[in-house]
Amino acid sequence: MITGGAGFIGSHLAEELVKRGRNVVVVDDLSNGRMGNLESVEPQLNFRRHDITRGLIELDGLEKLDEIYHLACYPRQISFANPVRDCEVNLIGMISCLELARKTGAKVLLTSNTGIVSNPQTLPVDETFAPNPLTPYDTNKLASEYMLKAYHKFYGIRTVAVRFASIYGPRQRVNEKLGWRPVIPEFANRLLGGEAPTIDGDGRQTRDFLYVKDAVDGVVKAMESNVPEANRGGMFILGTNREVSINEVYQAIAKLLDSKIQPKHGLGKADDIMRMRYNYAKAKTTFAFEPKTTVEDGLAETIESLKRETAVR
Amino acid sequence: MITGGAGFIGSHLAEELVKRGRNVVVVDDLSNGRMGNLESVEPQLNFRRHDITRGLIELDGLEKLDEIYHLACYPRQISFANPVRDCEVNLIGMISCLELARKTGAKVLLTSNTGIVSNPQTLPVDETFAPNPLTPYDTNKLASEYMLKAYHKFYGIRTVAVRFASIYGPRQRVNEKLGWRPVIPEFANRLLGGEAPTIDGDGRQTRDFLYVKDAVDGVVKAMESNVPEANRGGMFILGTNREVSINEVYQAIAKLLDSKIQPKHGLGKADDIMRMRYNYAKAKTTFAFEPKTTVEDGLAETIESLKRETAVR
Repeated sequence: MITGGAGFIGSHLAEELVKRGRNVVVVDDLSNGRMGNLESVEPQLNFRRHDITRGLIELDGLEKLDEIYHLACYPRQISFANPVRDCEVNLIGMISCLELARKTGAKVLLTSNTGIVSNPQTLPVDETFAPNPLTPYDTNKLASEYMLKAYHKFYGIRTVAVRFASIYGPRQRVNEKLGWRPVIPEFANRLLGGEAPTIDGDGRQTRDFLYVKDAVDGVVKAMESNVPEANRGGMFILGTNREVSINEVYQAIAKLLDSKIQPKHGLGKADDIMRMRYNYAKAKTTFAFEPKTTVEDGLAETIESLKRETAVR
Repeated sequence: MITGGAGFIGSHLAEELVKRGRNVVVVDDLSNGRMGNLESVEPQLNFRRHDITRGLIELDGLEKLDEIYHLACYPRQISFANPVRDCEVNLIGMISCLELARKTGAKVLLTSNTGIVSNPQTLPVDETFAPNPLTPYDTNKLASEYMLKAYHKFYGIRTVAVRFASIYGPRQRVNEKLGWRPVIPEFANRLLGGEAPTIDGDGRQTRDFLYVKDAVDGVVKAMESNVPEANRGGMFILGTNREVSINEVYQAIAKLLDSKIQPKHGLGKADDIMRMRYNYAKAKTTFAFEPKTTVEDGLAETIESLKRETAVR
């Protein structure tokens, strides 16, 4: 089962699991996900349109589950605007998955967020850094990680968490309704529309960009790992240990789109993280996670996909 | 405003604030609290029967608040039995208080729980110990602490948390319906009924027992403190830095009740914390918190109160 399986990352995970011959159930309320994301695999999976905050235990067809991937989430960017909903989706959604695991014996995986460490004193960030969640989103994600440990300890169910770096790739989209504007589709959309995109501040801030197929590979490996740390609520960072600046991302996208448009520079966001890079050595050592896609290749795939979508429209 | 103000600790806080001439609003759904707890101050306060999980912003009469004390909580002992309700009361209740503070400018205080540190390697425990929440209750309390920091940082509202040691005193009661059996009223009730109480394990496990009036004193001092740490979501432990064993508590209660009944010893709880003692130096240094009541005196007051209640029944 994948919660949020019609979303950006969830749909790539669904494809991968179907490819591996699994019987996949996708639970998604389509608040951000969309059926089009599942186009290539829809006939091979069981789709359930359902809001996970209304519970999962009572849902028919979930009696036999081996693996629960909890990807559904409320966007961080708007978590202060609706902190109660954020808590319901992110944390109560997590609890619903854990209660379902008690009933089915499934292993539970949470996709958490490296943003929980918001003020690293050194780079790269690893799993030992103290948490410092600054939004309801990060607080609820951190609480969800603790919930995995508590449920493992109390009930013995197998649980694991991964923390994602900045994931990008095909099907990541700007969601105007939710006010969710990931930087790569935002830049590309503007350029495709002939507009100058706006870069926050001077654009020299860096991120650790992980291609979605590499993220999915790490997620599946964490789920399938049988070492104790991957069953008792242990947490693994999935990143690339590489820094790429927002300016570099902009230049790469402009080149792929043959655009000469110069970006505008807006005010830098207060408290924006200036540099970020994640050490994935624990995931590498434990279950042989290794990102394989360069930013150049990943961006090329992403932009190709966006161009096809735009052409279809 | 006091959430949970008709409860055990909340009603003592309400009395103290009324005594100081404050206009006090108590919000309580009476799921565990009871109006009888507020008997002595009811005419001087504004009581609102309300479930905080349904939000506070819309409630009339809360337009002007200076201080919000968030004491309402769902009992830890049953948090695994209803983890969603626990999250709603403890964490969404916290969010509701913080949203109300945004509107009113009030300072917000949370009463959190030293149980968040569940496996200390040394004693006494202080504020620097890494959290290790093992129940939904502790997880939601920890998330609430983080929420105080996030709201302070984002909105500038003043917030502070205290973590309580084991609080005891008059009006702490066994709640059969909620399955909440605090050790002191449990022992006393059994002895008053002529039954042998059951001690978990050998009874040599220790706790740091803080008398409720000392706890209230610390709470008010934390709220009134103007140092930065007490306004930016800082956390202060309130305890006594003394260990008292469960056997010692039993003997003291039996003596106060002139009872010769010998206790039974049950199985020790798996993962019971064997020794506990809390360092309150940060609260002492910051706002002159100092517990004044010995366990002997505190238990005498508690048992006197219980005897009066039993006589009335």
